[in-house]
Amino acid sequence: MLLLRRCHSLTRFGPLNTQRHQVAPAVASCAVRLWSSSSEDQRWYQRAHRPSWRHALAGLLAGTGAVLAYGLHHHKAEQEDTITVQTIEKTSALPIFSQEEVTSHRSLEDGVWVTYKGGVYDITEFVAIHPGGDKILLAAGGALEPFWALYAVHNQEHVLEMLSEYKVGELRAEDLKKQQAVQTLDPYSSDPERHPVLRINNLKPFNAEPPPEILSDSFITPSAIFFKRNHLPVPRVDPASYQLHVEGLPGVLTLSLEDLKTRFPKHTVTATLQCAGNRRSEMNQVKQVKGLNWGIAAISNATWSGARLRDVLLAAGYGPDVAQRAFHVQFEGLDKDVTGTTYGASIPLNKAVSEEGDVLLAYEMNGEDLPADHGYPVRVVVPGTVGARNVKWLGKIIVSAEESSSHWQQNDYKGFSPGTDWDTVDFKSAPAIQELPIQSAITTPADGAVVNRSLEEVTVKGYAWSGGGREVVRVDVSMDGGKTWQVAQLRSSDKGQAPEPSPPPGRAWAWKLWELTAPLPPEAQELEIVCKAVDNSYNMQPDTVPPIWNLRGVLSNAWHRVKVNIRED
Amino acid sequence: MLLLRRCHSLTRFGPLNTQRHQVAPAVASCAVRLWSSSSEDQRWYQRAHRPSWRHALAGLLAGTGAVLAYGLHHHKAEQEDTITVQTIEKTSALPIFSQEEVTSHRSLEDGVWVTYKGGVYDITEFVAIHPGGDKILLAAGGALEPFWALYAVHNQEHVLEMLSEYKVGELRAEDLKKQQAVQTLDPYSSDPERHPVLRINNLKPFNAEPPPEILSDSFITPSAIFFKRNHLPVPRVDPASYQLHVEGLPGVLTLSLEDLKTRFPKHTVTATLQCAGNRRSEMNQVKQVKGLNWGIAAISNATWSGARLRDVLLAAGYGPDVAQRAFHVQFEGLDKDVTGTTYGASIPLNKAVSEEGDVLLAYEMNGEDLPADHGYPVRVVVPGTVGARNVKWLGKIIVSAEESSSHWQQNDYKGFSPGTDWDTVDFKSAPAIQELPIQSAITTPADGAVVNRSLEEVTVKGYAWSGGGREVVRVDVSMDGGKTWQVAQLRSSDKGQAPEPSPPPGRAWAWKLWELTAPLPPEAQELEIVCKAVDNSYNMQPDTVPPIWNLRGVLSNAWHRVKVNIRED
Repeated sequence: MLLLRRCHSLTRFGPLNTQRHQVAPAVASCAVRLWSSSSEDQRWYQRAHRPSWRHALAGLLAGTGAVLAYGLHHHKAEQEDTITVQTIEKTSALPIFSQEEVTSHRSLEDGVWVTYKGGVYDITEFVAIHPGGDKILLAAGGALEPFWALYAVHNQEHVLEMLSEYKVGELRAEDLKKQQAVQTLDPYSSDPERHPVLRINNLKPFNAEPPPEILSDSFITPSAIFFKRNHLPVPRVDPASYQLHVEGLPGVLTLSLEDLKTRFPKHTVTATLQCAGNRRSEMNQVKQVKGLNWGIAAISNATWSGARLRDVLLAAGYGPDVAQRAFHVQFEGLDKDVTGTTYGASIPLNKAVSEEGDVLLAYEMNGEDLPADHGYPVRVVVPGTVGARNVKWLGKIIVSAEESSSHWQQNDYKGFSPGTDWDTVDFKSAPAIQELPIQSAITTPADGAVVNRSLEEVTVKGYAWSGGGREVVRVDVSMDGGKTWQVAQLRSSDKGQAPEPSPPPGRAWAWKLWELTAPLPPEAQELEIVCKAVDNSYNMQPDTVPPIWNLRGVLSNAWHRVKVNIRED
Repeated sequence: MLLLRRCHSLTRFGPLNTQRHQVAPAVASCAVRLWSSSSEDQRWYQRAHRPSWRHALAGLLAGTGAVLAYGLHHHKAEQEDTITVQTIEKTSALPIFSQEEVTSHRSLEDGVWVTYKGGVYDITEFVAIHPGGDKILLAAGGALEPFWALYAVHNQEHVLEMLSEYKVGELRAEDLKKQQAVQTLDPYSSDPERHPVLRINNLKPFNAEPPPEILSDSFITPSAIFFKRNHLPVPRVDPASYQLHVEGLPGVLTLSLEDLKTRFPKHTVTATLQCAGNRRSEMNQVKQVKGLNWGIAAISNATWSGARLRDVLLAAGYGPDVAQRAFHVQFEGLDKDVTGTTYGASIPLNKAVSEEGDVLLAYEMNGEDLPADHGYPVRVVVPGTVGARNVKWLGKIIVSAEESSSHWQQNDYKGFSPGTDWDTVDFKSAPAIQELPIQSAITTPADGAVVNRSLEEVTVKGYAWSGGGREVVRVDVSMDGGKTWQVAQLRSSDKGQAPEPSPPPGRAWAWKLWELTAPLPPEAQELEIVCKAVDNSYNMQPDTVPPIWNLRGVLSNAWHRVKVNIRED
């Protein structure tokens, strides 16, 4: 563990705040050596950084628990054998059980046993505090591996340490061999290839963002580097047999991909999508939150084409009578976990049916078929609304009196007061995030960049966007940490191309890129560059992170700050 | 002037930041003595506090220039004779002109002369820099008094000082007498009686707010104490002959009050109105802005009933063809200035015609005919939109391709960067304020209040509201200046009554009142109580005032802070 600590000293922050993009090579080389360090050191580290079962697992089950540093994380898979060996060695004096004996423990009455890499664990006491509830019983009497393969973030050192406390024995060698033969199936094996420039926050499910300086090069983000946020394995959908089911309306409707393309007018919208967790890493710098440690680039802008959801709902019999009884439109993805539970979310009915809502059942992104990572063949695009409601690989639409009952609608993607912790949080007390608040960030220069004095000026670039179709009308930039402000130039097109047409009020779905060139202050040795945006409802970004900190690390939209050093020539 | 300074030393701030409500009696007694102080002191004061002509007049012509302390302001009218005497005495060596000679100077070619209280002024050079443009020429060759009577805020010491620089002579005594005979007409003489509890920011036009602690007593603000924000004299409208003209649609429509009440369904909405300048006084504490020095109570909540604007527009032939060419709905009030220019504003067409916009042509407030101050017999109520667009004494509706060309739409009620000043401001660069951002304030305890330690706890109350129909979902309260936060209880009814029904998404037009009782921290001697609200788009209030400061002092929605002292028993 000494090695790990030494490695982290190369980074700007502690292990939980590692600015992974800048230090990935250093951490990577350290990570290889990590597992040969003494187990005593390792236990110290685990205890010091160990949240309670309840808190750690809440994040993990949401598929979003990547709270440890990137290097540690990204190289875990390659190191798993090492962990197994250590775990087995540590406990070799325990009794040996057959698979049959394990299988006989699959209820609270008989005890709940599971196996993991040849170890046998009695987790009966843990079932009651499992944040995912009964779902854990699906693994009872069997192996954990197929479940954890879906949520690869379980494979973290402190989770394994917690599990080890429940160890009661070893699985018989021949039963272990049989298990391993079955476990070769990786539900992520059919995930598509990704662009190498992407910065990976989590591999399985795949979550990655582009480098910020590339992001602001293009008003329309190329699909390959558009941020990826998957909750589950990418389903491979055959376009020929694809069916979209529409329920909860007088006419139950089933549409093929061809139906969607030919029976409804094709509508095109340029819309920015942003993950609720964009800029979460800044909240982690205040105090650890649960979720993927996103930088500033979990946001991208694309052109989407497809059928209007409104038109499809009208074709299925939507009318004023439905509006009397229904208030939400639920979406189910074709991506599912090992229990068959699909990804799900819902939006308010009025957004779905409004002529001005521009909600699409999109089959094209940037003029081509949707890429596999973005929902091929059909996804929902809900302009102005948090990414999580833009359900990909769309399988079903349900017009309903209730919101989606999914984990992601009910117990995730909600905002809370900074004073609310995992012991006091009541997810029913906060609305599901729909429209997002005003946001902006500096994409270049990077934090810690060096500018030569002889250049005499510095050019600052970034993006700005607001939810709910509210247009960004101004971006203020400060070179002195927020004392004085200048107004940046806004841009709503790719360079050399005609600007996007001015949107009607309430339908500004696309971000604005911005730029400001300012002289270097003669006496400054360091600049603290800050940006803040204003939308046409004159909403402003909050000044600082701590007062908007929340336990899930969502809605991180304080002023963005980068420090730049001026080098005297 | 020594006296004035002494008087102001009784107040918490300098003359421009006077917390007038707390010190009115002291200032009032000083004001009486003010004008007998030496003219040398007076000139020093005027120079020190004098903005440029351009800047001072920009605010004044908007009828909003009450930037001086209340006491000085409020008692000006009673002291005007004193000013006249001083002005005449100071300049008695100048030549005498007849009215005929003055009248011959009413063009830029011949020179532009005006008279004021017996003095003759050549303001030719000032015409070009007059923020109101050519309008000033309406006074050319005649008296300023009838114009300034409309905008009583012209009657400020520094304006008179500026005018004195242009003095060229005295008006012949018999002509002065004739003028005075004509000038007995006060356009504000028919303004209604007002409730004595109101705190007056400006008398003519009348602008006043209720005491904060009364404001938060009622979910529905009684009409008598609902904040008043008039730009011009209150017109007296005969309901029997009242006509509303609707223009810009296929069918030109003229409606009587009876038509409005009988031809269209009566629709009722509970909606909060807020002045764009609410909490401007906090911006004045950072740096002087132009505008009435509102406290935290330029906001109130009422129940409004009337015809839907949408229904009236449909009756006048609104349809999809109109939506192709028209983008705004303009409103003209029946209140007018001396030139006949009416108050005017506009809103986006989509808000006006949306079924979910709830825009009313209201003829009732809180179940009774509209009071004179609130637009009798008919006003527009645009829920979720800044007060200034809720045009009172409505005379005309114009569906149009353009926004209203009025001063208040084009060159006022817009937000700018803190770095923008009156020399650099370009009013065309910012959108007219429509929806307002998230807002909250503490109504009790008052700043500077004292709490006895033996009470052991303190109850904090306030309001919270957001524009655009975004519902307030949480109010955070801090007792320690923003370090730690607790969640307040929200209320959407008057105590003992059923809460207002939950609004559909995007139609939360009414504020929420909130309350929190917290123990007194054992060791604190002083509390800095802070509140901040969150709406259902998760927009948050900015932390501090300076970064949102703007030259017109609008959109003041930083965290509200009050300091409370704990008295040991």
